[in-house]
Amino acid sequence: MAYDNDNIFAKILRGDAPAHTVYEDDHTLAFLDVMPQADGHTLVLPKTPAANIFDIDPGALGPLMCTVQTVARGVREAFPADGIRISQLNGPAAGQTVFHLHVHIIPCLEGRPRTPHATNMADPSVLAEHAEQLRAALDRLSGA
Amino acid sequence: MAYDNDNIFAKILRGDAPAHTVYEDDHTLAFLDVMPQADGHTLVLPKTPAANIFDIDPGALGPLMCTVQTVARGVREAFPADGIRISQLNGPAAGQTVFHLHVHIIPCLEGRPRTPHATNMADPSVLAEHAEQLRAALDRLSGA
Repeated sequence: MAYDNDNIFAKILRGDAPAHTVYEDDHTLAFLDVMPQADGHTLVLPKTPAANIFDIDPGALGPLMCTVQTVARGVREAFPADGIRISQLNGPAAGQTVFHLHVHIIPCLEGRPRTPHATNMADPSVLAEHAEQLRAALDRLSGA
Repeated sequence: MAYDNDNIFAKILRGDAPAHTVYEDDHTLAFLDVMPQADGHTLVLPKTPAANIFDIDPGALGPLMCTVQTVARGVREAFPADGIRISQLNGPAAGQTVFHLHVHIIPCLEGRPRTPHATNMADPSVLAEHAEQLRAALDRLSGA
């Protein structure tokens, strides 16, 4: 599908919209989902414009998934998580709501059903605190 | 977690258990899920032994996701799919049932709820037919 340069994630990538950023490198950016399915629900994006997995240069997938792995380790460290669900949705029928490719990292707890996708906006002050916790965990894990 | 060399996907990778294989290269293998959430539900595995995303060498993630992209294109071509959900589950709490890292590629249809994870075993003859359709689509897309 055609890439819309004014989608909210494109704006975040340009610095034109705020985000609770937890990780950034040359190829990727990670920030908290503002409508989390669980505490610590994080999104990882490639910086290259691509609406979905069909549109991205295959060479960008390795760096993207390396960041997913790194950030998932941090999420597991910083938040209650018996398991971690990683998902990437392509098209509205699959639940995609923002059309810049992104990977969800979602902590899962035994016996607790997930909050459905994109329903409740989290308190920004809680998100800011969670982002701080996650950045601190990533710093510990990287030995920074 | 410790990797169990006798998990069913390890057996499939060794050729000691059957699978409806649709794609293989040096680093990855893809086959149909025997308990599909939709027609065309496919799994992509790295050949390297890794129970989950935390256990795999980051260098193996690029080849894994390139295969996911390739096979997802085939799935979209061969089966009814308004969208494609890609997911990768880590730990029983996240819904992981086989402890060799694998990525789900699941076709989604507008307005049709997914079959829950791992509930009904598909008819092997239907799976064989679906695997043939998907291999043919992948051949067409690769120009083979």
